[in-house]
Amino acid sequence: MLELKVDLGDRSYPIFIGSDILSNPNYFHPYITGKSVAIVTNETVAPLYLELIRSILADYNLTVVTLPDGEQYKNLETLNLIFDKLLQARHTRKTTLIALGGGVVGDMTGFAAACYQRGVDFIQVPTTLLSQVDSSVGGKTGVNHALGKNMIGAFYQPNAVVIDTATLSTLPDRELSAGLAEVIKYGLICDPAFYEWLQENVERLMSRDPEALSYAIHRSCQDKARVVEADEKESGIRAILNLGHTFGHAIETHAGYGVWLHGEAVAAGMVMVADLSFREGKLCKEDVDGLVALLESVRLPTQPPSGISPDRFIELMAVDKKVLDGQLRLVLLDSVGSATVTDNFNPANLMDCLEQFCS
Amino acid sequence: MLELKVDLGDRSYPIFIGSDILSNPNYFHPYITGKSVAIVTNETVAPLYLELIRSILADYNLTVVTLPDGEQYKNLETLNLIFDKLLQARHTRKTTLIALGGGVVGDMTGFAAACYQRGVDFIQVPTTLLSQVDSSVGGKTGVNHALGKNMIGAFYQPNAVVIDTATLSTLPDRELSAGLAEVIKYGLICDPAFYEWLQENVERLMSRDPEALSYAIHRSCQDKARVVEADEKESGIRAILNLGHTFGHAIETHAGYGVWLHGEAVAAGMVMVADLSFREGKLCKEDVDGLVALLESVRLPTQPPSGISPDRFIELMAVDKKVLDGQLRLVLLDSVGSATVTDNFNPANLMDCLEQFCS
Repeated sequence: MLELKVDLGDRSYPIFIGSDILSNPNYFHPYITGKSVAIVTNETVAPLYLELIRSILADYNLTVVTLPDGEQYKNLETLNLIFDKLLQARHTRKTTLIALGGGVVGDMTGFAAACYQRGVDFIQVPTTLLSQVDSSVGGKTGVNHALGKNMIGAFYQPNAVVIDTATLSTLPDRELSAGLAEVIKYGLICDPAFYEWLQENVERLMSRDPEALSYAIHRSCQDKARVVEADEKESGIRAILNLGHTFGHAIETHAGYGVWLHGEAVAAGMVMVADLSFREGKLCKEDVDGLVALLESVRLPTQPPSGISPDRFIELMAVDKKVLDGQLRLVLLDSVGSATVTDNFNPANLMDCLEQFCS
Repeated sequence: MLELKVDLGDRSYPIFIGSDILSNPNYFHPYITGKSVAIVTNETVAPLYLELIRSILADYNLTVVTLPDGEQYKNLETLNLIFDKLLQARHTRKTTLIALGGGVVGDMTGFAAACYQRGVDFIQVPTTLLSQVDSSVGGKTGVNHALGKNMIGAFYQPNAVVIDTATLSTLPDRELSAGLAEVIKYGLICDPAFYEWLQENVERLMSRDPEALSYAIHRSCQDKARVVEADEKESGIRAILNLGHTFGHAIETHAGYGVWLHGEAVAAGMVMVADLSFREGKLCKEDVDGLVALLESVRLPTQPPSGISPDRFIELMAVDKKVLDGQLRLVLLDSVGSATVTDNFNPANLMDCLEQFCS
């Protein structure tokens, strides 16, 4: 069992990483303050893991909210289903929500916790690789809007994050790959040694070697915690965690939520960023090719879907949260292992990049 | 012009109270950080005051969101109308929202500011007495749910509160009275000298004497700021601001949002609390009668609507946010000018109280 701490003053919390820890009360009971708990999960995850957690919550007033599965349900309407259930079961502001599922469940449960009676406690129990290495850590919560991804939400930290690596045994291959996109991202933005390790261990990860997966999760959470601690509310450096996300969100919005997995869109977005960074003279051609090769070995897409034009890209990127007062900002790579948020790039290079990928 | 400060560390902000200050840029420009502003108002207020504010915002990218007027629109669906407009007009996380209207507009705009792109700046410009003395100060934002009032929301402080007392000249009599309910509340819970002043000056207030109204607003905001500073997120003492609100919310939910004005429901609720406090041996009969007389002179209701049974009251109060782990807590009066939050009261006294008022 590995334990990490996200150090945010009075909003600090532990991340537990281990195998078969979902039915261990030690990772849950100390982080539940009242007598009531509501588990929010989805139709896919509930049959697999709900009973494990339920077994250690016999002493609490328990409500289970089972949502439909998919990014297309990450909206205000589905969020209201959580509020309906909480109010019907008379949950007070002393209740604790438990998010059992992937990134969609985690983001929505966290936002529900932020808003229900102006704020209740919650615990993240991510069951996909992507949510374990990314969305469950750092307190970004929210839902999508028809006009943009994650446009409605809150910064709201959990009481604890419980990562059971055994849940990865039931994860579909496609979602494993999508999670690895975010893992690779950490190497690219701030951890060159980890990036090298990933290049050397990609086969072990793809064959779900438990030790390799645990290491990758731990290292990713560590990298993310370090960035979040430096800039909780993304007024600066935290934005580097969005490497590839501006292009990626445009792809997701264009394709329709749920058609491309988030990690898949981020993978294609990272290649586009690498290409733009190369055009800006920041990255060498070998590094771009190396990234494409790494993503291909993880069976991730390395270009956007056909049918999305450069103009459509620009239009969709214009609503990105990193746009400030009309100026598009992007996370660019200075080298493998180092990223910067900047609006200082040649627009012609961006257009060339978009035209290359949209041809 | 009077100025107050709400002292909450890095979330501190000023309250400006004056006549004809809506078109004075000094109260707005320093509190707008970016180049974009969105004014959120409603159909009733827009024709009266929108142009005044708009006149000083010519240098900003300006969006106006006009909502339907009424408590029945204070819900997630209407909130989403604000997000629609902000996204359509490409507002970024550097935008500033301005809430121009009463409590409903203020609560919804504040909550929209808390959630839009995980948090943007906002300014409160309350145009009703009730919102000037209560909802615009202290950072409680949110919307109603069919199963309970203000059940979804956030603690989110504005950058500034601009109170133009000239707006009260267009306020309907019924809303003036409703606002005075909250003014009287401050006297009851923490300011006996102000309560005495109110008893002596009720006629001046009802005839809209500008000096008397300004004084009452300033003193109310001062009392509220003091309580909020001591306990921003209502873990303790702040709950006394809810005097009469547990009964009041039950009345509002039962009657249907918008049928009773919030202040009217609070007035009836305060009488019920005074009665229960009397039954608990805390308040003398003269004080209860004095409160009824004061509320009557302000033309406020002093009992709940007919047709609401004691059992229905109990059921509706059970979802109140002050219920913790199944235990109903109420704000009771120890004397005129002093209140306590407690679950330590005789349930039989509560039932007697409900039966008296529901006969």
